[in-house]
Amino acid sequence: MQRTLIQELVKKENKEVLIKGRVVNVRNLGSVVFLIVQDYTGIIQCVLDKKTEVRIGDVVDILGVVKKDDRSKSGFEIQGKKVGITSALLEDLPLDLSKNELELNLTTLLNNRSLTLRHQKIQAIFKLYDILLKSYETVMREEGFTEIKTPKLLGAATEGGANFFQVEYFNKEATLAQSPQFYKQIMVGVFERVFEIGSVFRAEPHFTTRHVNEYISLDAEMGFIDSFEDISQMLNRVLRKIFLLMEKEAKPYLNLYQANLVEVPAEIPSFKLSEIKEIIAKKYGYVVPEGVDIDPKGERLAGQYAKEKLNSDFVFITHYPWSDRPFYSLPDPQNTKETLGFDLIFKGLEIATGGQRIHDYKQLMENMQKKGVKADGMEFYLDTFKFAMPPHGGWGMGSERIIQQILGLKSIKEAVLFPRDVKRLAP
Amino acid sequence: MQRTLIQELVKKENKEVLIKGRVVNVRNLGSVVFLIVQDYTGIIQCVLDKKTEVRIGDVVDILGVVKKDDRSKSGFEIQGKKVGITSALLEDLPLDLSKNELELNLTTLLNNRSLTLRHQKIQAIFKLYDILLKSYETVMREEGFTEIKTPKLLGAATEGGANFFQVEYFNKEATLAQSPQFYKQIMVGVFERVFEIGSVFRAEPHFTTRHVNEYISLDAEMGFIDSFEDISQMLNRVLRKIFLLMEKEAKPYLNLYQANLVEVPAEIPSFKLSEIKEIIAKKYGYVVPEGVDIDPKGERLAGQYAKEKLNSDFVFITHYPWSDRPFYSLPDPQNTKETLGFDLIFKGLEIATGGQRIHDYKQLMENMQKKGVKADGMEFYLDTFKFAMPPHGGWGMGSERIIQQILGLKSIKEAVLFPRDVKRLAP
Repeated sequence: MQRTLIQELVKKENKEVLIKGRVVNVRNLGSVVFLIVQDYTGIIQCVLDKKTEVRIGDVVDILGVVKKDDRSKSGFEIQGKKVGITSALLEDLPLDLSKNELELNLTTLLNNRSLTLRHQKIQAIFKLYDILLKSYETVMREEGFTEIKTPKLLGAATEGGANFFQVEYFNKEATLAQSPQFYKQIMVGVFERVFEIGSVFRAEPHFTTRHVNEYISLDAEMGFIDSFEDISQMLNRVLRKIFLLMEKEAKPYLNLYQANLVEVPAEIPSFKLSEIKEIIAKKYGYVVPEGVDIDPKGERLAGQYAKEKLNSDFVFITHYPWSDRPFYSLPDPQNTKETLGFDLIFKGLEIATGGQRIHDYKQLMENMQKKGVKADGMEFYLDTFKFAMPPHGGWGMGSERIIQQILGLKSIKEAVLFPRDVKRLAP
Repeated sequence: MQRTLIQELVKKENKEVLIKGRVVNVRNLGSVVFLIVQDYTGIIQCVLDKKTEVRIGDVVDILGVVKKDDRSKSGFEIQGKKVGITSALLEDLPLDLSKNELELNLTTLLNNRSLTLRHQKIQAIFKLYDILLKSYETVMREEGFTEIKTPKLLGAATEGGANFFQVEYFNKEATLAQSPQFYKQIMVGVFERVFEIGSVFRAEPHFTTRHVNEYISLDAEMGFIDSFEDISQMLNRVLRKIFLLMEKEAKPYLNLYQANLVEVPAEIPSFKLSEIKEIIAKKYGYVVPEGVDIDPKGERLAGQYAKEKLNSDFVFITHYPWSDRPFYSLPDPQNTKETLGFDLIFKGLEIATGGQRIHDYKQLMENMQKKGVKADGMEFYLDTFKFAMPPHGGWGMGSERIIQQILGLKSIKEAVLFPRDVKRLAP
């Protein structure tokens, strides 16, 4: 007999069907046994003989008749006739996956990832992630961006600093891409507007709730801009569209977290870094420590201010110091100690960094020299600017941080299927 | 004045507009100068004063009036009034990008990648690639697959052998993913159907027309299959849909290569490896050398046979030897020296590998032992099979090879924006 998918049961009232899936809950009422079964299209309750011996976690096929049942969510249940166990647990599950909340500490949650991912509430995180990816792909294409894929094995580090991983590449040394920066800029010279969804690798020794050492960056780069605000406005529009698109499908997953897709304002408020630091000092009595542009607490308070005063979950912070931004960042001609770029804060956490790039060859070479950056291995990138690049800029956005903030997850690691940190290379 | 996009000119007949873009050709007729200008939405011809001094490659803005012109492809041209050079070439282009054919050897083509990518015919490759990505994303979702992103930094190699890259990961050794194999299988236990578009890394020392050391794999994995043919049939359907979707948008790019999107048969012909070897020996007098399952020449001839005899550009080769397939491949119970999997050949080149996996824990452990594969670092993967995995399988498909074969490119490196090979880490 052919398999019927759970979402198709609505068309099969009073018909005999064969469903296949995983048992996600079992309730034994003495006289009957209720099995809750999940396949990739939905969840259904099956009523079975009291002698049925099936465990939560088993993979089964169930032959039965589809009956209307107003008490059930889907409006239907299956009067089961026969259960076959396609694949049985060899050991008892070490976790109770049928509970509403797993209530595990992060280490246990991640160590048992292939099981904890099966929990309904954790599945929801990655269903939402799937919808985010789809929405980004859709919206970027609507805005005229071409999807590109650029190499992750590089001859030279793109972002400077020491936070890159080294790879033995035949008889050479390679580094893992910290960003697609050089390549997406080169591609502005080709397609004018490009986007990439790709892995980036950061050898940061931080062990925090907002860092992982490998993540998926939602990148974009666009040409013929008049100012860096063209970039922040595009990011604003893209996020607004994405959140609207996500809303359509995400409801059941958000509900499990009592979360809402907040509205992205038509115009996200924006402050210069120096302004917002003054504001949070005055308003919340918090002074960002010397030596950093802004710290996580400062970002949280900036987010709090935007929410309290401007009713926005998003806020742009602009004009970061020249000394803290990479060599390709465009200095503000009004004040060359600052750069024409931004971070985007969502509910108090930085989710994106962007800005205008230097597109003039001589200015780029001078800026590198001032910063003491050597050209070694990036000649191909620098030479591109001899051949007429339009004014341009773009952003890199942490996909997992968006999910973390939407759902209010304590750690970003909960928003990564198999996260990597200083101590974790498995699962 | 605000910029008008080239695709919007059709609505602006006899109006004054400002367009921005790159000059892709210049023809000086003495009395007037014709500039061909490209932006991300199209290409337009501009007629300008004979004194206009602009070079191919310059980034310009042109103020002018939109005029009907039946001789031009778009039906319009711009009577230019004023040209501004937004960004000028600092050096003459080392290549003539206005020629129909670049006629460069592969090394020169790749060494000058940020310029050669600007050539119309090379742009077309990556426009087609963008359409392929979009189509894969769309079709996989239609078929109920959830998009996932899995780690590329691993504690253990997934495919065995020695062809993996090593990474210094803090104080440990990591390897770069040769495939998302372990993770996509685990995810079958969660979502039943998953797909991934991601980077894979192969430390193969080959220097050929069909290998690169980093590429984008189009992966899929699905549960509750009855046989490995469920996988090959799904791949068949997915490719058929993708080729139909691509056809709608790809025409202008295909035309530059005199290429067509061939029809993917409703049922791609399929041969056992042993059968097809006999056939090509008999028909073409070619005997595949001892010690390999099939070689590139064998694949070419298999493709030739499918085309000549069955009018198909695609052919499945199934039942590869147990000894040549990774430890997770399901042996054929009829003949355990063979596995229940396939390669897909497109126009004589392997573009995908797939098959059914072992889902039974004991069988997996026995198979590993027989193969002499050690469990080190993959316990998390193996343990998953103690907890009831459905029968499942999937494929990995080389995205760039599909493009190579559609366009008839001599080397796969032409289908990668910035390819990586044994000798190349830049650009």
